[in-house]
Amino acid sequence: MSDALDLGYARVDLGREARQGLPEIVYGPGKQVSEISGIVTTLLGRNTGPVLVTRVDPDAAAAVLGGVPGGRYDRDARLLVWRAARPIGHTVAVVTAGTADGPVAAEAAAVAAALGLRTTLIRDVGVAGLHRVLAAVEDLRAADSVIVIAGMEGALASVVGGLVETPVIAVPTSTGYGAALEGVTALLAMLTSCAAGITVVNIDSGFAAALAAFRLTRGPK
Amino acid sequence: MSDALDLGYARVDLGREARQGLPEIVYGPGKQVSEISGIVTTLLGRNTGPVLVTRVDPDAAAAVLGGVPGGRYDRDARLLVWRAARPIGHTVAVVTAGTADGPVAAEAAAVAAALGLRTTLIRDVGVAGLHRVLAAVEDLRAADSVIVIAGMEGALASVVGGLVETPVIAVPTSTGYGAALEGVTALLAMLTSCAAGITVVNIDSGFAAALAAFRLTRGPK
Amino acid sequence: MSDALDLGYARVDLGREARQGLPEIVYGPGKQVSEISGIVTTLLGRNTGPVLVTRVDPDAAAAVLGGVPGGRYDRDARLLVWRAARPIGHTVAVVTAGTADGPVAAEAAAVAAALGLRTTLIRDVGVAGLHRVLAAVEDLRAADSVIVIAGMEGALASVVGGLVETPVIAVPTSTGYGAALEGVTALLAMLTSCAAGITVVNIDSGFAAALAAFRLTRGPK
Amino acid sequence: MSDALDLGYARVDLGREARQGLPEIVYGPGKQVSEISGIVTTLLGRNTGPVLVTRVDPDAAAAVLGGVPGGRYDRDARLLVWRAARPIGHTVAVVTAGTADGPVAAEAAAVAAALGLRTTLIRDVGVAGLHRVLAAVEDLRAADSVIVIAGMEGALASVVGGLVETPVIAVPTSTGYGAALEGVTALLAMLTSCAAGITVVNIDSGFAAALAAFRLTRGPK
Amino acid sequence: MSDALDLGYARVDLGREARQGLPEIVYGPGKQVSEISGIVTTLLGRNTGPVLVTRVDPDAAAAVLGGVPGGRYDRDARLLVWRAARPIGHTVAVVTAGTADGPVAAEAAAVAAALGLRTTLIRDVGVAGLHRVLAAVEDLRAADSVIVIAGMEGALASVVGGLVETPVIAVPTSTGYGAALEGVTALLAMLTSCAAGITVVNIDSGFAAALAAFRLTRGPK
Amino acid sequence: MSDALDLGYARVDLGREARQGLPEIVYGPGKQVSEISGIVTTLLGRNTGPVLVTRVDPDAAAAVLGGVPGGRYDRDARLLVWRAARPIGHTVAVVTAGTADGPVAAEAAAVAAALGLRTTLIRDVGVAGLHRVLAAVEDLRAADSVIVIAGMEGALASVVGGLVETPVIAVPTSTGYGAALEGVTALLAMLTSCAAGITVVNIDSGFAAALAAFRLTRGPK
Amino acid sequence: MSDALDLGYARVDLGREARQGLPEIVYGPGKQVSEISGIVTTLLGRNTGPVLVTRVDPDAAAAVLGGVPGGRYDRDARLLVWRAARPIGHTVAVVTAGTADGPVAAEAAAVAAALGLRTTLIRDVGVAGLHRVLAAVEDLRAADSVIVIAGMEGALASVVGGLVETPVIAVPTSTGYGAALEGVTALLAMLTSCAAGITVVNIDSGFAAALAAFRLTRGPK
Amino acid sequence: MSDALDLGYARVDLGREARQGLPEIVYGPGKQVSEISGIVTTLLGRNTGPVLVTRVDPDAAAAVLGGVPGGRYDRDARLLVWRAARPIGHTVAVVTAGTADGPVAAEAAAVAAALGLRTTLIRDVGVAGLHRVLAAVEDLRAADSVIVIAGMEGALASVVGGLVETPVIAVPTSTGYGAALEGVTALLAMLTSCAAGITVVNIDSGFAAALAAFRLTRGPK
Repeated sequence: MSDALDLGYARVDLGREARQGLPEIVYGPGKQVSEISGIVTTLLGRNTGPVLVTRVDPDAAAAVLGGVPGGRYDRDARLLVWRAARPIGHTVAVVTAGTADGPVAAEAAAVAAALGLRTTLIRDVGVAGLHRVLAAVEDLRAADSVIVIAGMEGALASVVGGLVETPVIAVPTSTGYGAALEGVTALLAMLTSCAAGITVVNIDSGFAAALAAFRLTRGPK
Repeated sequence: MSDALDLGYARVDLGREARQGLPEIVYGPGKQVSEISGIVTTLLGRNTGPVLVTRVDPDAAAAVLGGVPGGRYDRDARLLVWRAARPIGHTVAVVTAGTADGPVAAEAAAVAAALGLRTTLIRDVGVAGLHRVLAAVEDLRAADSVIVIAGMEGALASVVGGLVETPVIAVPTSTGYGAALEGVTALLAMLTSCAAGITVVNIDSGFAAALAAFRLTRGPK
Repeated sequence: MSDALDLGYARVDLGREARQGLPEIVYGPGKQVSEISGIVTTLLGRNTGPVLVTRVDPDAAAAVLGGVPGGRYDRDARLLVWRAARPIGHTVAVVTAGTADGPVAAEAAAVAAALGLRTTLIRDVGVAGLHRVLAAVEDLRAADSVIVIAGMEGALASVVGGLVETPVIAVPTSTGYGAALEGVTALLAMLTSCAAGITVVNIDSGFAAALAAFRLTRGPK
Repeated sequence: MSDALDLGYARVDLGREARQGLPEIVYGPGKQVSEISGIVTTLLGRNTGPVLVTRVDPDAAAAVLGGVPGGRYDRDARLLVWRAARPIGHTVAVVTAGTADGPVAAEAAAVAAALGLRTTLIRDVGVAGLHRVLAAVEDLRAADSVIVIAGMEGALASVVGGLVETPVIAVPTSTGYGAALEGVTALLAMLTSCAAGITVVNIDSGFAAALAAFRLTRGPK
Repeated sequence: MSDALDLGYARVDLGREARQGLPEIVYGPGKQVSEISGIVTTLLGRNTGPVLVTRVDPDAAAAVLGGVPGGRYDRDARLLVWRAARPIGHTVAVVTAGTADGPVAAEAAAVAAALGLRTTLIRDVGVAGLHRVLAAVEDLRAADSVIVIAGMEGALASVVGGLVETPVIAVPTSTGYGAALEGVTALLAMLTSCAAGITVVNIDSGFAAALAAFRLTRGPK
Repeated sequence: MSDALDLGYARVDLGREARQGLPEIVYGPGKQVSEISGIVTTLLGRNTGPVLVTRVDPDAAAAVLGGVPGGRYDRDARLLVWRAARPIGHTVAVVTAGTADGPVAAEAAAVAAALGLRTTLIRDVGVAGLHRVLAAVEDLRAADSVIVIAGMEGALASVVGGLVETPVIAVPTSTGYGAALEGVTALLAMLTSCAAGITVVNIDSGFAAALAAFRLTRGPK
Repeated sequence: MSDALDLGYARVDLGREARQGLPEIVYGPGKQVSEISGIVTTLLGRNTGPVLVTRVDPDAAAAVLGGVPGGRYDRDARLLVWRAARPIGHTVAVVTAGTADGPVAAEAAAVAAALGLRTTLIRDVGVAGLHRVLAAVEDLRAADSVIVIAGMEGALASVVGGLVETPVIAVPTSTGYGAALEGVTALLAMLTSCAAGITVVNIDSGFAAALAAFRLTRGPK
Repeated sequence: MSDALDLGYARVDLGREARQGLPEIVYGPGKQVSEISGIVTTLLGRNTGPVLVTRVDPDAAAAVLGGVPGGRYDRDARLLVWRAARPIGHTVAVVTAGTADGPVAAEAAAVAAALGLRTTLIRDVGVAGLHRVLAAVEDLRAADSVIVIAGMEGALASVVGGLVETPVIAVPTSTGYGAALEGVTALLAMLTSCAAGITVVNIDSGFAAALAAFRLTRGPK
């Protein structure tokens, strides 16, 4: 059980890289700059793969990068990355219903890219103007998997799920107001999609969708 | 205020026909056969338009018809009708996402027809097979208004709402299980539809949708 | 499928005007001034009808108007309009239960007016003082359709629905506290109204109500 | 502390009559005929006022009356009463929105009557036909207090609350379907009524409303 | 119907004083100082009884009092009062479970006092230290009615309801965190109280409780 | 890892007795008589302590006892027990608010007894008649721990929590209707109790409460 | 758009096989035997792959098989299959937390098998006896993907998600009572799992999980 | 009933120390510095045991300590303590799933310590890396009781509950987003844990958990 290191403020799971093919990914909120720096330094030293910190604001990112060089910050995705993985040869299409879903898509795409996936971004193809998603069918079918990101009623997931045969990972977003219930409506709608075999992750979690896409590239062989 | 008649078991709103262009419509559940018969007889005698009783099971319907002749029972719609209205010249398209939405569609269509609307029924065009609804676009656009009936995630309302410019009345149904939450998910999804200007009625209420369509034919002229 | 233009930050639905009789309406929140300006410029150039941006605060409105002249800003409605439509000949009455429902009414009325509807505003006629709404019956019945805006328990929708025979579009508002549940109570109440044929849109969405009213003026002829 | 008697299956609160002016009222469901009979016998012997058992079905009622004579069963109200109180001189008006609210009204009226209140029953005056409740204003104002019973959106409570100045006790009922949420919608609507000073009791509890009305007749003098 | 005056920003219900024994009470939030002043001036001129504005912050209160002299501001209750009523001879006890319920109690007591009720304030007698409420039994029983104010699990309402025979009006408060759900837990608990005949008003609404207590003093005689 | 035995229809956790001081307890619903018999036989053979099956109806119980002799069935608690434990010397008081809470109390008491705890049953001491629980204070304080079982608003837990200093385990029950929400109200109320240090288990789970009480008797010594 | 066939009672999506690699799968509930037979016959005649009907009870299954020979019925899975697919070379492990999750697991495994996946069933390894799931780690890691089926708190999904690197599809079940909320608790818990990259499908939907696993085998090659 | 002292702003429960072995603990939020100081001074003077104030921010803490010397402030726990108790000889292990659960753990540990319990802190052992909690089994089993603190899906409580035989008190935290529902998901999950005999307290209430642990040390002897 030597593969966990207790830094006092965190117990770093050093064995995750061996167990799951990538190191523990650090969730930024609620952690001090010094704590993030310490965890990242530990992971860089004890592991060999990519090191990621999610949901970091620009100031904290600059401070961390000042102390732990070699990383790169993606402002749209709020993501810090060191040692991004080499491309794996799996393309994931990231599709959004509206412009307000942009930040979640940015996180999904940036995390996926840092883990070695090729990503195609298809923006703003909500079903109220159906020709937009129909125009993108070729791109959707060319991908190995699809991440669908939508708020409000989340209908895009059902439409895309019916157009492609590859894995579809739906991400509800907190876009919308009133009956949108901070994303709960889109979440419930995606879970009850009439398009068979769609899977769903937590509200606004571009991160979880990217990780789910990464799992698609792993296997027992 | 002489336009309400107290039968003891019910206070019949005799003035509604004058006020709103059609008599009070009787909600069957919880009423005895004798009570339904009494109310219907009153409305037939004191009003001149159509008289409807909704959600009546076959046995009760037969018993009522035995005592109050001249009516007709629609088993799929669970509807009793006397003096159906003459056609008004407004066509409403009733569209469903799946076969399980059939009973709600039957009620919507039968009530609409009894009130004088022409109805077109377009069944089983859920968005998981998008070509089905696209094949129906001509019929949808030819109608004066559209009633969209869908359970589960209710995405059909958004797709239809984006394809036509006429009024769209969405009816969520309690079809589905688990996260469908007895129709609440479809209800919330339709209320947050990205297709602008869609309106929504209560879960499983084909009746309310038909009445809303009927209101479209009324006006101050 | 040439009727969608990808601006990078948005994919503008240029065909909506042809398809639905009015261009895509821009939702302001979450968009930069430059993005709003770009979308508006595109719509003004590629379409011929009214162009609207909703929920814009005064500063952003001034900045956009500085770069895209010819528009007008309605501060109460938080609405930007270019090329308002000529009157269609349909009057919609906008009725509110209380003064706190004012901003939603302002949005409904301003959007409806920009799309060519005549609007009558009837304010502050909540049912606790029933004579107020009874005094307005003539005006309500003279309109082609009615938008009822109410928070708290939303009872005004049921009362109005029983007084007129024309289409009634109910807008629940987030007015009230505690058990008002941010508008959910009014929403549920309106959906279960005892006044038959009322339809409902999302909480606080004066915009959706106006669009639904606009659909009433469209048809297959 | 001698005023509680432990019968094994129940601990009878003998002091409640002295403390609150009426004995403990027995809730029927879940109790055996023998247990009901035992509790009633105890209360009849150790107290002097009325003894009531609520929500008893006809068979159980007959069996209890067989063993504990002197009582009376009201089938509509599902209520057993021994030693009904003499009239107090307080009139409560029991008003319902629809016929489906009948059983709750029957319980409210029968319990109130058994405790000595005069009751006036005003049925089926839902707000969709406003003239019905307006026609009843004189009767409503003549009462010392009003119990308003309504399901669905419960709007009758707000309308009555604005018409009378006496205490109004609102009882939401589980009438309706879909978004009526088994009475929760009416409950929330009544709690957020725009008519000031209305109070609310639990869903379907005609019993609680009658008890609240009874409390109006008590006081410190 | 001449008893409503349209000020443009509000339609003042001038007849409420005649109809219900007290003028419309103004809800402060969302109204400008000039609007409050205008409504108050109207009510002072056209009615003869007390005029109240609730939930006013100190700055707005000072500004209103500057323009409409003769009023008094209660900072704890956030209440403005002109022409407070003369005592009616009805005592209401206002009881709280904890110190955090203080502001709601202040509003209840101040509104009740302005309407002519005598009020007794019994603070901080939550049931975790039962001797505190037991020590107050005499005071509770001496009152004509009781307002119980409690957050968290709201158990005080059940205990008080079992100790007195007079009307009990329970006010749930948004005190507490987590499973307290902003007062919803206390609300539900009070509605299902095992103490028969308790009535409930909206969360945090000391105002509604005071109005309900005021109704206790009105009657058809 | 040899301490789990796969019977095909179940994987019996044979090591739980060593790990936690008592064998796995079998949950009856959804299991065939033959499956229950097989699991019980396995546990009796491979373990040495008490073997329990919960929520068994009388017919199934008789059938199981026919095949696996030596057990005893408690009809009120719906519990099957073989090899009940010898007394441990810890007394748990099981207190209920009303007679409807009886079945949950029976399960709690019977499971606790089968595990070696002494149990005292104090029934029907709801807080609407406070003297009943006050009369039981001596018994409550004499126990090593208290299980409080209440539905509706669950206020008894707060009152008992303030009267004793020992561990209090609160069990919400699904007793009540309407706003009781099948026990959710009591659950939330108990979790937000003003009596500090109360703990809560799942709705209607007399079983969980008994197990929690059993844990009180275990320790590292 | 010739790939949809309208049978009157259903519009069969004949193109789904070409579009998504397998024909439409028929949902049994609410369909007559004759309707199921008609749809199956159509799919068998117009497509070449497997034909499945889910959630069929034994009597209906026998009747359908009588009319449409060549199929096979799996009673545990409630599944009818014609022309099961040949093995694809992808192994999915189906893991359950408890015996009550058995029916959902049976459906997942049977649907997956009918579509050509190899399935390994690992039963009853809930986390309260952690050694059970640890003993299964080799089998879990040997699979190409894992379906985790659990009710109550659904913790098994998090534990398995941390042990394997392959895709994990979590299925919440409606097992449990009270706070389990018919599977909603397990659903929410799985969506917020601390194990990154887990995906979730609807409550009790072994079918959806199998389809999601089938999608893993498809791709753009 | 002389054991309650009314300070005007609070009624201090002086008898709680005698009744429950420790004085009333002061909840800081919503109280003025002068009020906190007054209550603390009263408790220090009239009781002899520890005096605690929870959820105090640093500025208020400094101000109170300035006026009431002898206390100590724990910034992580936001706790003020005077006269901390001498060790009782009971060890409680405080275990957290992630670093974000730190503040709740700090409160639990500091309150427990101030009441005389020995505390062991085991941080950041979430079940996604199961070896971390397995490495801590010895420490967990060595404790007399365990407080498990976790947000998101709260699975750690089930895992720990299966590993130890001592009392387990689970504290759900509001850690996480989206479907975590501010801690409600973890709360529900812990209540439905498959590990028998776990108990639960309110969301984020390290305080309640510590008090529950303190009760474990009390008894009738």
